[in-house]
Amino acid sequence: MSTKIHHVGIAVRSLDEAVGAFRKLTGVDPASTEEVADQKVRVAMFQVGDSRIELLEATAPDSPIARFLDKGRRGVHHLTLAVSDLAQTLAALERDGFKLIDREPRIGAGGEKIAFVHPSSTAGVLIELVEESESRNPGIEGRNS
Amino acid sequence: MSTKIHHVGIAVRSLDEAVGAFRKLTGVDPASTEEVADQKVRVAMFQVGDSRIELLEATAPDSPIARFLDKGRRGVHHLTLAVSDLAQTLAALERDGFKLIDREPRIGAGGEKIAFVHPSSTAGVLIELVEESESRNPGIEGRNS
Repeated sequence: MSTKIHHVGIAVRSLDEAVGAFRKLTGVDPASTEEVADQKVRVAMFQVGDSRIELLEATAPDSPIARFLDKGRRGVHHLTLAVSDLAQTLAALERDGFKLIDREPRIGAGGEKIAFVHPSSTAGVLIELVEESESRNPGIEGRNS
Repeated sequence: MSTKIHHVGIAVRSLDEAVGAFRKLTGVDPASTEEVADQKVRVAMFQVGDSRIELLEATAPDSPIARFLDKGRRGVHHLTLAVSDLAQTLAALERDGFKLIDREPRIGAGGEKIAFVHPSSTAGVLIELVEESESRNPGIEGRNS
């Protein structure tokens, strides 16, 4: 059902400081840094192999990232899996009793179809699903199929 | 420096329950399930693309996984990055002021060279590094290089 780890989202207090650490850990510069207004976050993305590490800093006290950190939590905020057909995946998960935050795909910051699954169904991990058609990544998926 | 996300390690209370959830999320059965005596954990590994999701259940109250959950934390316990030369990577990180849990590579459960970096240096995420020579994974890395 899932084709790869799309990205790991990490909640950080200071994006600048975290970018410095992950630049040294990964050996690469962020592929992009952007502000996502509707999620109230600034995001720096590192491409690592076929996946990404996303560092997320809140831009407002009511940002999901601020609330996560204010609860005393830290580190990985969500884990994102790529799927080829998101609507079909959500329907299957709902039939299997998963608690869905988004019962239907919605459009995420990057224009992709996304949906979240509640951590109570997934061993405490907030799971994001993103639809990624195979043709968007022929470099890997085409050769593995 | 890092070639890919090697795996994401998730702390779970019930391995059986978590395996059921991740089997449905990923669409695959665990590639393996094993007990790692010296870490006091049972582990189920799911291969997802070029990375793995590892579900970790404590087998004793003093397991690192039990301590993590007992602190009220949950979800992702560590993020593991593959590197091509671990000793060199650790030396570079130490020079850059990272707090290393393992200053030199040690042998992990699978016989691989591993080391941990303290979360205080890495935006709150416990980072594991694993040495993985490119020849061990020609299917992906050989074709991308």
